[in-house]
Amino acid sequence: MLTRPLPEDSGDILSALGAVRSRVKNKEPLIHHITNYVVANDSANAMLAVGALPVMAISTNEVEEMVSQAQALVINLGTPTTSLIESAVKAGQAANAHSLPVVLDPVGAGATRYRTDNALRVLREVRIGILRANTGEMASLLGHCSRMRGVEAGGKYHNVAELTIQASLTFGCVSVSTGAIDYVSDGKAMAMIHNGHPLLKRVTGAGCMVSSLCAAFAAVENDVFIASTAALAFFGIVAEKAALLGKGPGTFRSALFDTMFSLEESDFFKSLRVEVKNI
Amino acid sequence: MLTRPLPEDSGDILSALGAVRSRVKNKEPLIHHITNYVVANDSANAMLAVGALPVMAISTNEVEEMVSQAQALVINLGTPTTSLIESAVKAGQAANAHSLPVVLDPVGAGATRYRTDNALRVLREVRIGILRANTGEMASLLGHCSRMRGVEAGGKYHNVAELTIQASLTFGCVSVSTGAIDYVSDGKAMAMIHNGHPLLKRVTGAGCMVSSLCAAFAAVENDVFIASTAALAFFGIVAEKAALLGKGPGTFRSALFDTMFSLEESDFFKSLRVEVKNI
Amino acid sequence: MLTRPLPEDSGDILSALGAVRSRVKNKEPLIHHITNYVVANDSANAMLAVGALPVMAISTNEVEEMVSQAQALVINLGTPTTSLIESAVKAGQAANAHSLPVVLDPVGAGATRYRTDNALRVLREVRIGILRANTGEMASLLGHCSRMRGVEAGGKYHNVAELTIQASLTFGCVSVSTGAIDYVSDGKAMAMIHNGHPLLKRVTGAGCMVSSLCAAFAAVENDVFIASTAALAFFGIVAEKAALLGKGPGTFRSALFDTMFSLEESDFFKSLRVEVKNI
Repeated sequence: MLTRPLPEDSGDILSALGAVRSRVKNKEPLIHHITNYVVANDSANAMLAVGALPVMAISTNEVEEMVSQAQALVINLGTPTTSLIESAVKAGQAANAHSLPVVLDPVGAGATRYRTDNALRVLREVRIGILRANTGEMASLLGHCSRMRGVEAGGKYHNVAELTIQASLTFGCVSVSTGAIDYVSDGKAMAMIHNGHPLLKRVTGAGCMVSSLCAAFAAVENDVFIASTAALAFFGIVAEKAALLGKGPGTFRSALFDTMFSLEESDFFKSLRVEVKNI
Repeated sequence: MLTRPLPEDSGDILSALGAVRSRVKNKEPLIHHITNYVVANDSANAMLAVGALPVMAISTNEVEEMVSQAQALVINLGTPTTSLIESAVKAGQAANAHSLPVVLDPVGAGATRYRTDNALRVLREVRIGILRANTGEMASLLGHCSRMRGVEAGGKYHNVAELTIQASLTFGCVSVSTGAIDYVSDGKAMAMIHNGHPLLKRVTGAGCMVSSLCAAFAAVENDVFIASTAALAFFGIVAEKAALLGKGPGTFRSALFDTMFSLEESDFFKSLRVEVKNI
Repeated sequence: MLTRPLPEDSGDILSALGAVRSRVKNKEPLIHHITNYVVANDSANAMLAVGALPVMAISTNEVEEMVSQAQALVINLGTPTTSLIESAVKAGQAANAHSLPVVLDPVGAGATRYRTDNALRVLREVRIGILRANTGEMASLLGHCSRMRGVEAGGKYHNVAELTIQASLTFGCVSVSTGAIDYVSDGKAMAMIHNGHPLLKRVTGAGCMVSSLCAAFAAVENDVFIASTAALAFFGIVAEKAALLGKGPGTFRSALFDTMFSLEESDFFKSLRVEVKNI
């Protein structure tokens, strides 16, 4: 199934996935976050656990200067306000000027018109590298009938692969739909990640942490499709290991950070359940 | 002591308490939070641990639309600002229009005039279903001499039962005073909950999590007195179990989320220490 | 090496350090925080773990009234906005009027001009008791060439002791530079704290928690040099113990709160690695 043309500098796509995570540790990329106040602490801890450096800066007085020192930008619209959206656009455009990868997490798009409009505005005014969303958010952004319950996707979408490809083509970016199976597409190839664990639905911020990981991995890997697939697989495997260590959502959450920090490359390869195909 | 007329559809009040928690899991109510930035993460995790879905939305551009999809609203005034209060009132009135239960947590009322005034404004302009406060906050809202130290009640109140009943009658809602013993009153009956653990005073957000649980339980139980009593008993029992698992405030906190997730109904009944009486 | 003139009421400086921590537990000082939304939860939990009471209040409508009830104020500029800076200055001046110790944590000074300017403004308009910073932040405030990467100090500074003394003399306060070794100076004496653990760099908010501990300790100890040194030594020892209990950054973090709560005075003395000298 691994038919996608591989990056020139790697023997095969699997080893490319593993290499990205090591490179984060070595390069310690600085990841600028414009994110919501519910999960900011978790996102920062996820970055530190994998060896990246988080910085949260939201004032329009400083976002351009801060982003100029960063290696990637995360725009997470989890608790949107007028001033946060202005900062997000300003930071995003500065990131574009510096050719940095920008990840958009359109939390709750489809739940309210305000959230949908904000996310679409960012997609129009900023060149997004990776759109990371759940299926309900992605469907809403594509103008399909949305099944959102607050910030959670409701119901089942019959063709998530199709939805993911359509988002990639419509918005001109790598799109990542997360759910029981995660889908990644750049419009030419599709990766399906079967790693993960149901306990991720019982802790807040799992999706936000994945978005941050996509940014950290894209900061050290120019092939954004590879970076996103690696981030999703990495987090899914981490969740599987952490579920064995935790006794419920509280200790599982602590184990997530432990495992993000300590996951060995050999464990990563043994656990990887990823399909990649051309479309 | 269990003399309160019981809800028609339940054999007795104890089984009614147990049933509420199961119903949260089955119905997955969406709980809209307008809350402070200190505990937002904990409140969200508490909701997910019991099977409810949290959503945090604070912009006046979206609170009405978001609350229209929710099954309950929490207004927590822990870090009040002018714009947050406007959003709280707007969301509260929308919740009233949709006949949703609204929980008010007047954090720090009595500590500053601003906090007291904000809480009284919300009580005037929004129909509150449950007022959840510590004794100092409740006394302040009733115009008694307050003994607040920041957001903590200081000193001892000699007649907390009386205070709780007075709040219920004055504000026309179920009132919940939390402390070493928790009191719940709807103006006709009084429940005293003896469950709980002193370590709850060594983690931030315990009170805020209880307020969120009151909302989640009221979202699936029309009898707000039953819902509140069940929420308080549930959280108190969870704290007792978690204290056996944790080695201090840090691991106790992780164990709180584990136990909220896993507490069995049989354990709940064995541990319940609740008195209910007509007043 | 323990050559600094000791406070009159203590047999020696080591026992003075141990005494401060016990006094926090007995006096339960109220510590007003104006802090960032990334670590507010951690700072509050650190305060509760050592027996202090945190309160977060940021509106200009209430900061003066709130600070008048507190025993110390923390100003942490981790996610600065225009309104937060106004509140910080207002609260700081009120704290000065009440002769309360004020701790400034100039997070990210040097990373952007906005952060540097904000921190310098607070230093000009508020009488700061303790300036707690990393080496990059401190160098920036002194007008040296900064090596900041976001909110992390980059590179190595050859003479951190000199930097710390210069900050103390320039800003007329006790200055605390944290890193692999922590330095504390009041311009006359210098303490070097060798306690600590590298895992502190893999959790967010470690620096912010130390700043809060400095405030809690200064709330019960008039000798601000002793209070700061005790806070740094205490947190460093806590980190060493927690590293033995945790399996990675997640469980280490839980263990930090457990150990802040439970560290025995005898353990404290056995583990203390502090040098104090006159300069």
